[in-house]
Parts: sequence; C-alpha cells; structure tokens
Amino acid sequence: MPRLVMKFGGTSVADLDRIRNAAERVRREVERGYDVAVIVSAMSGKTNELVGWVRDTAVLYDAREYDAVVSSGENVTAGLMALTLQQMGVPARSWQGWQVPLNTNSSHGAARIVSIETDKLVQKFGEGLHAVIAGFQGISPEGRITTLGRGGSDTSAVAFAAALEAERCDIYTDVDGVYTTDPRITRKARKLAKISYEEMLELASLGAKVLQTRSVELAMRYKVPLMVRSSFEDTEGTIVCDEEEIVESRVVSGIAHSRDEAKLTVVDVEDRPGVAAAIFGPLAEAGVNVDMIVQNIGADGLTDMTFSCPVDEVPRALMALEKTREAGAVSYSEVIRDEEVSKVSIVGIGMRSQAGVAHRMFEALAKDGVNIKVITTSEIKVSVLIDRKYLELAVQALHDAFELDKAS
Amino acid sequence: MPRLVMKFGGTSVADLDRIRNAAERVRREVERGYDVAVIVSAMSGKTNELVGWVRDTAVLYDAREYDAVVSSGENVTAGLMALTLQQMGVPARSWQGWQVPLNTNSSHGAARIVSIETDKLVQKFGEGLHAVIAGFQGISPEGRITTLGRGGSDTSAVAFAAALEAERCDIYTDVDGVYTTDPRITRKARKLAKISYEEMLELASLGAKVLQTRSVELAMRYKVPLMVRSSFEDTEGTIVCDEEEIVESRVVSGIAHSRDEAKLTVVDVEDRPGVAAAIFGPLAEAGVNVDMIVQNIGADGLTDMTFSCPVDEVPRALMALEKTREAGAVSYSEVIRDEEVSKVSIVGIGMRSQAGVAHRMFEALAKDGVNIKVITTSEIKVSVLIDRKYLELAVQALHDAFELDKAS
Repeated sequence: MPRLVMKFGGTSVADLDRIRNAAERVRREVERGYDVAVIVSAMSGKTNELVGWVRDTAVLYDAREYDAVVSSGENVTAGLMALTLQQMGVPARSWQGWQVPLNTNSSHGAARIVSIETDKLVQKFGEGLHAVIAGFQGISPEGRITTLGRGGSDTSAVAFAAALEAERCDIYTDVDGVYTTDPRITRKARKLAKISYEEMLELASLGAKVLQTRSVELAMRYKVPLMVRSSFEDTEGTIVCDEEEIVESRVVSGIAHSRDEAKLTVVDVEDRPGVAAAIFGPLAEAGVNVDMIVQNIGADGLTDMTFSCPVDEVPRALMALEKTREAGAVSYSEVIRDEEVSKVSIVGIGMRSQAGVAHRMFEALAKDGVNIKVITTSEIKVSVLIDRKYLELAVQALHDAFELDKAS
Repeated sequence: MPRLVMKFGGTSVADLDRIRNAAERVRREVERGYDVAVIVSAMSGKTNELVGWVRDTAVLYDAREYDAVVSSGENVTAGLMALTLQQMGVPARSWQGWQVPLNTNSSHGAARIVSIETDKLVQKFGEGLHAVIAGFQGISPEGRITTLGRGGSDTSAVAFAAALEAERCDIYTDVDGVYTTDPRITRKARKLAKISYEEMLELASLGAKVLQTRSVELAMRYKVPLMVRSSFEDTEGTIVCDEEEIVESRVVSGIAHSRDEAKLTVVDVEDRPGVAAAIFGPLAEAGVNVDMIVQNIGADGLTDMTFSCPVDEVPRALMALEKTREAGAVSYSEVIRDEEVSKVSIVGIGMRSQAGVAHRMFEALAKDGVNIKVITTSEIKVSVLIDRKYLELAVQALHDAFELDKAS
C-alpha cells in the first residue's frame, strides 16, 4: 500500500479537541488507502515549559539530561494520538524514537539523524497498524535519548518519509500554505500551489517561518514531496517539490522580508588581505549572525566594511569589534550604526534563466522613492536593505511589479 | 562502596525548589560514602493530569498507550534531578525504565517486575556516577513501556534496593515516619522507631497511607530495610525491618482505622454449601472490595450473611446482589445496610505470643460504651466495626489501653 507521512505541529495538537481534529484528518487518509505514519510535536507550550525547567535548574546544563526531559512532551502526544485514532476505529500504536529506532549521532540538543530502521514499522503496517511517532527525538549510539533541535519534528517527518519511501509528507500547521508574501503586509498575497525546494529554502532562511530550513534541505536531498497545509481548514496546501515538476516556473515566486535588521559600518579599516577574516571571525565567535557584507572601494590604504545583522545582536557585535581592536587584531576609527533598517528579498528559480530581474526590482523600488542601502544576490535571490519605514511599501511595490497576485 | 536507594514521592519533587531540597539530601548521603540510586515519582499532580487526558480520550483505552503517556512524568523529574545533582557537584545521570532495563511482564497499567539488569548501573557506579531512575516504569518483553500501577514508585525503589543489594531503601515522603495511630485523632500518637514488615503490611492495608502494600511485601521477601522519613524535616524516620531485628516487640504497635465503611446484611439466604461463593463471586466481579464477612447461625435452612465494604461501593454491591438474585443464583428477602460505620484495628506481632489481647481491646471499648458490630481477627491484628460517631473515641481509648504513648 502507498505510504503517507502526516506531521502535526504543536498548535495542531494543543489539546484533546485539536488532537481529535488532527486524528480525523489521519482517518480520511487511511480511508483513501494509505499506510500512515503520523509524526507529532509536543502540545504547544509544553516544550517551552520543559526547556524553562531545565534552564532554571542549571545554566550550563548536561545536554543529555536536557534531551531526556524535553523529549517527554512528544511522548505524551504520540500516546494520546494513538488512543484517539483507536477510538475512531483506526488501528494505531505509538512509537518513541528509541523504539523505532531512529538512530542519531551524540550531538545532544541538535542531533543529526544517522539512520531509521523501518523494519518494525513496516511489519506493523503489514498487520494493519498505523504508526504514531514522537517527533523531534532519537537515540544515540550510547543508548541515550537525543533531540534534533528546535523545529526538529519537521526534520523527523521528512526523514521518516524518505526512509519509508512515502508518496508525500504532509506538514500540517496553523497556516494553510506558502504565500507569495506575508498576507499581513498585502492582501494581494496569494497562496502558491507549488514551489521548488530551492525557493522554499531561500524563503525559510529569509524569515518565512513555515518550515524549518533543515527539513527542506533533507526533503530536497531525498526528493520527498512536501505539502504545507492547514490543520484547521479544508483547503489544498502548497506542494514543495523538485523544480522539474513545476512546469511553468515564474521569474519570482515570493517576496520575503526580515523587519528588525541593523546595518553597521566599520570605518577606516586597513585595506589589506585578511582584514575581513580578522573582523568577521570574532563576530561569528560572539554568535552574531552576520548576513549581508559590503566592502567599499578603499583609498589611502583604508576602507570601510559594512554588514547587517539582527538588531538585537548589535550590542554583542559592538563588544566583539571593540575587543578585537583592543587585542590589536584590527584597527578602525569608528563604527556607524543604523538600527532602523529592514531586508526585502525576491526569490525565484526563474532568475537563473532570465536576465534583468534585479534591475526590475531596483526600478520598482526607485519609482516609489525607496532608497537601497545594501544589495546582495544569489542565483535565485536578490536582497536589499532599506529604511524600515519603507518596508510595507517596498513589499507591496515588488508584489505588484512581479505580478505575484496573478495565478501562474 | 555500600549502596543506598533513596525514593522521593510526588510532593517531594513537586517543583524545582523541592527537587533541590531532595537533591541536597542525596548529596549528604553521597558524602557519607554511598553509591546512591535515586528513584523519583512525577511532580505531584502530573500523573493525574496525564491520566485525565487518557481517560478523556478513550473510555476503554489501550493500556499500552496509557503507559506510554503516563510514564512521561517520571522521565521529566529524573532528568531534572540529575541536572540538579550535577549542579551541586554530584556526578549523576538519569535512567528511564527501558534504559536500565527494568523488565516487567506485559500487564500494562499494573505490570509485575520480572528482573532488573543492574550491570550498566553498577558499571556507572564504578565510574563514580550516581543513578537517578524514573520510578513506576519498566519495559515489557515486546519492548513497550509498562507502568507498575499507582504508588508503583515505592515498588520500583524496593526492587532496585533488592537488586543492588542496597544497605537500606529510604522512602522520603510528606510525613516523617510511621505513627502508633493517626496524629490527627490523638496528640498522644507517637512516631515508631521501628516496625516489622508484617505489622507495616497490616497497617498499610488498613488505611495508613504511608507505603504501598506491594512495596512492603517486596521488602519483606528480599529483607530490604526500609526507612520512611520526611523530605522536609531533618528527623529520623521509621525503620521497617524484619521482626528479628526488633529486640523488644510490644503487644500492639499501632492502631489503624478506616472511616468510611458500610455494613450490609443479606437476609434469609439459603443455608447451604456454596452460597457464600454465590454471593461474593459476583461482588468481586463487580469490583466491590469486601472486607469483613460474618455468617450468622442459621435456622429453618435460612441464614443471614453480613459483610463490610467501602461506603462508595455500596451502590455497586446492591446492584450486583440484585442481579445475582434475578439470575436465580441466590435468594434472599432483603439487604439491610448501615452506611454509618468505621473500622478500627489493633496491630502487633506481640499478639502471636500473648493471649488475651482481643479481650483487652473489647474491654477498653466497652468501658467507653462503644458497641462492636463485627469482629475479625488475624494472627497479628484484631479489627472491629463500630458506629462512625465513636471512631475518634475508640482510637483514643485503645491508644491509652495499650499504652502506645509510652516509648517501648
């Protein structure tokens, strides 16, 4: 029988009513003839509560104990989901990570999946027993419980879909799909029927919080078709798939934004090889997520180095720079900061084959008087840093310019 | 190194502060040179919450899923306790039932312990690593999680103490020991320094809710010295041990009571062999915990059968009797009920060797005008059923009569 993986996030299993609602969706797929593996997160709020207890107990905690504690939330929902399915007449049983087993390495708190032994699952499918699997967790070579890091249930789901050679991996969540842009910014935002893995990866890493980046990478690697869909509405979701399956790709598929960015310019640094490493090494070590980087043309052996990072990391960044200067590793006259900027990005696999996309973007922004401060590009993405006050205007202008409100 | 098992119940690990307080007690024992195995319950209230969710999901639930859900509470406290100990400089790690493993049969929800494989625990002791073990849980031959039934953490603790050949098993709870009687009934109640397993068993089954009956049975079988002591006060507790270790045993060690009893008399049943079985079989099947039974002398081939049970089981009992009569298995004219009775019992291993103890009991009660309705006796116990309004009076009179306020 064809297999289907269905993953329900924390808000979709937040209480017994919602678990019943989710189970109802499972029942329908079972009736369509699928062997179903359901992957569940903890009830929303539970993982935060458990993490809070661990942190309140110890600042530098033993990650093995963190995992033992935090994984318990998924065990509860897995059992309750199995019971609910049984109650609806769907034969099912729960599986904890170690029971499958889902083998990981020993990087507790952010473990990598090594293998999934599907023999027992498949045997039980053969007996007509559907699987409810606690997401987010596995077992280390030492026999300790591991967790896959935040959002790890998405990763579990995709990994099980790959291992079970599932027809599809449905990610049920509190939004009903992937949109051309944030619907709160423009009502013209339209749900996409399909999007490629590459585009989804760019959108995910650019702040569209629908799917965890790692799960999209994994889906791409194993060519697992994902569907992002709503737990609460009966609508088709968005399929995330190989670009070859998207017959008519558009130039731009979506517009992402990241509101709270900051721009820092390190003034008068020496214009010599190795200076970028001398600056950005310590920033990385300080946990600053440097995003865009621009180096100006130098003069008199000096130059300016500009970069962006999330606003709340600015104090850390300044401290790291100051320490680096004090240590004599780099010299500069001052750091100019602009904490009132946002990033807007256009993403589309069509850019690969079509020239002039960036130009169209810049033109659209210029027409509305939006000044561009920094630009970066990748093969399927163009990002710009702009004044925060223009954020909504810019997103709307670009959505119109690339006609994203029209169905492809 | 000598080994010690320390068990903390739900109120002793109810929050992070209490876990720290419990861990402090562990640290002290570690400093005394013990290899310690800590057995923890779920935070108080947690198990009830989980059980509630299971029951709200399904009336006739799959006990395997019940166990998967309900066992998660202990996993949380085990991890948090291990972290707290580490924070205090005590090397420790958590163990879930399946990790040890503690092997049980497949009677989910009330599993029996089959064996405890201590190799890994002992190896870790050798590396200086103390153990924090999730109580109440084990693993079935099928690899599913099992639980040992309510109060099962006491049983876990005693089983681990036996398997590890521990010097003692300390049961930390919210009372500071076993008393001669309920201190809420008489201020003269005195904490016992020692009590025998047999006496403790009688007291436990008679309603002194300090220890689970099954754990005492297990301790008796494997001769594990138990100590019941307070998590919150620094006092010596009560040692539960073999009677041979109690040098001077008193005639009566304690007085137990059970407030909400009922007395039912089935009138005019046939006085023939098998009639008791015909009555009490269906009662047992209906889940009625029949306690005392008295059969009157019959006349004209008819007799009366009197028994006691908890008050809240009376409706069930009446229904079961009525059904039995309708089925023609037994005949009777009526059932007389008295729902205003209580049971008072004196317990003491000294009764074995000393005659006239029951007589002293009846005399003390008569002196205060307490009428006795039903009497049962065992080798080390005499129980009487009396009007509930005399309960406190009777306990106080017996406490005085047997001079329980005086240290032995």
